[in-house]
Amino acid sequence: MAHKRDSRHPLREICRTAARVFYDKGYDGASMQDIAEAVGLTKAGLYHHVRSKDRLLFEIMNYGMDILDEAVISRVRDIADPRERLRQTITGHIDLVVRTRDLEITVILHENRSLKGELRRRINARKQEYIHLLERTIAEVQAGTSVPPYITPRLAAFALLGMINWLYQWYRPDGPVKEAELTEAYVGFFFRGLLGEN
Amino acid sequence: MAHKRDSRHPLREICRTAARVFYDKGYDGASMQDIAEAVGLTKAGLYHHVRSKDRLLFEIMNYGMDILDEAVISRVRDIADPRERLRQTITGHIDLVVRTRDLEITVILHENRSLKGELRRRINARKQEYIHLLERTIAEVQAGTSVPPYITPRLAAFALLGMINWLYQWYRPDGPVKEAELTEAYVGFFFRGLLGEN
Repeated sequence: MAHKRDSRHPLREICRTAARVFYDKGYDGASMQDIAEAVGLTKAGLYHHVRSKDRLLFEIMNYGMDILDEAVISRVRDIADPRERLRQTITGHIDLVVRTRDLEITVILHENRSLKGELRRRINARKQEYIHLLERTIAEVQAGTSVPPYITPRLAAFALLGMINWLYQWYRPDGPVKEAELTEAYVGFFFRGLLGEN
Repeated sequence: MAHKRDSRHPLREICRTAARVFYDKGYDGASMQDIAEAVGLTKAGLYHHVRSKDRLLFEIMNYGMDILDEAVISRVRDIADPRERLRQTITGHIDLVVRTRDLEITVILHENRSLKGELRRRINARKQEYIHLLERTIAEVQAGTSVPPYITPRLAAFALLGMINWLYQWYRPDGPVKEAELTEAYVGFFFRGLLGEN
């Protein structure tokens, strides 16, 4: 299968294609040769861009976190109202997970058993940063209301991540539930769960 | 590594050990030879119990669904009050996911990309049955209140499954949050999200 390569971002294009191969064959089942063929490079050409299969997995995960940064975090950072910031974070994150294009990267991002040592620590540090951002925003939302904190920001953040990251298991954009309906339902559910308000 | 085999349930013991091997090496990375060695059988002995790697993956997933049936579904089925039934379903499901012993099986249960055709359909049918049970219970809870249905039973069921099934990604029984605290927080969060009540 031939893919048009993005000459400005060759590594990103390699990551997208390699993510599909890992998704289909499993990380352990896919060889660097399989990936080179899918990308349309020789094996030597592939090793020119990325020096090992480990490193390639790291680059895919790092790319997944870059997308989260660009598509979600950087767009909400300057919203002053914490409720609106949280609402847009949820909306953006859902959109990222359900966009078919990035499905494989999203899935692989959570299979970090295969990544070891220092590379694993670096990905986990980026994930922790996002969790802390969610926790701080949730705490701000709680502080701005008169209701008691029913749940710790940390548990609420993980409940939210579970709701959103689990979407890849069941949600289909061409199914009966449109993304706007899903997003509204999830945002409403989360805010009620957090604040107990209708 | 030698394991004591359960002579009454040899297939279950094989499933538990094979789940650990698949978890460590990936489904595609683990051979039937690896599994035979971990179980303490010859390869021929392993094939006597299970006729292919595909079939072994199916048996592990089927075992995972059996555990869900035994530990959760069968225990709540006869509870008349839908709220109490839902509360105990959530509590039992959380307990199942956080019990370290079954961690690998829980994880593999959701990696059903590797399972194909008829075997995959059979596992998915069992999963659908559980989702429908959740939906019916949630609808009953909604019907028993005076508040409008803020979210469809289906979306609420998937939000709940996401919250619970995602636990394996972050929750550690020996961490700062005890299981009782987690369960209380999640049950409260879910009921507020569903009904908008404090």
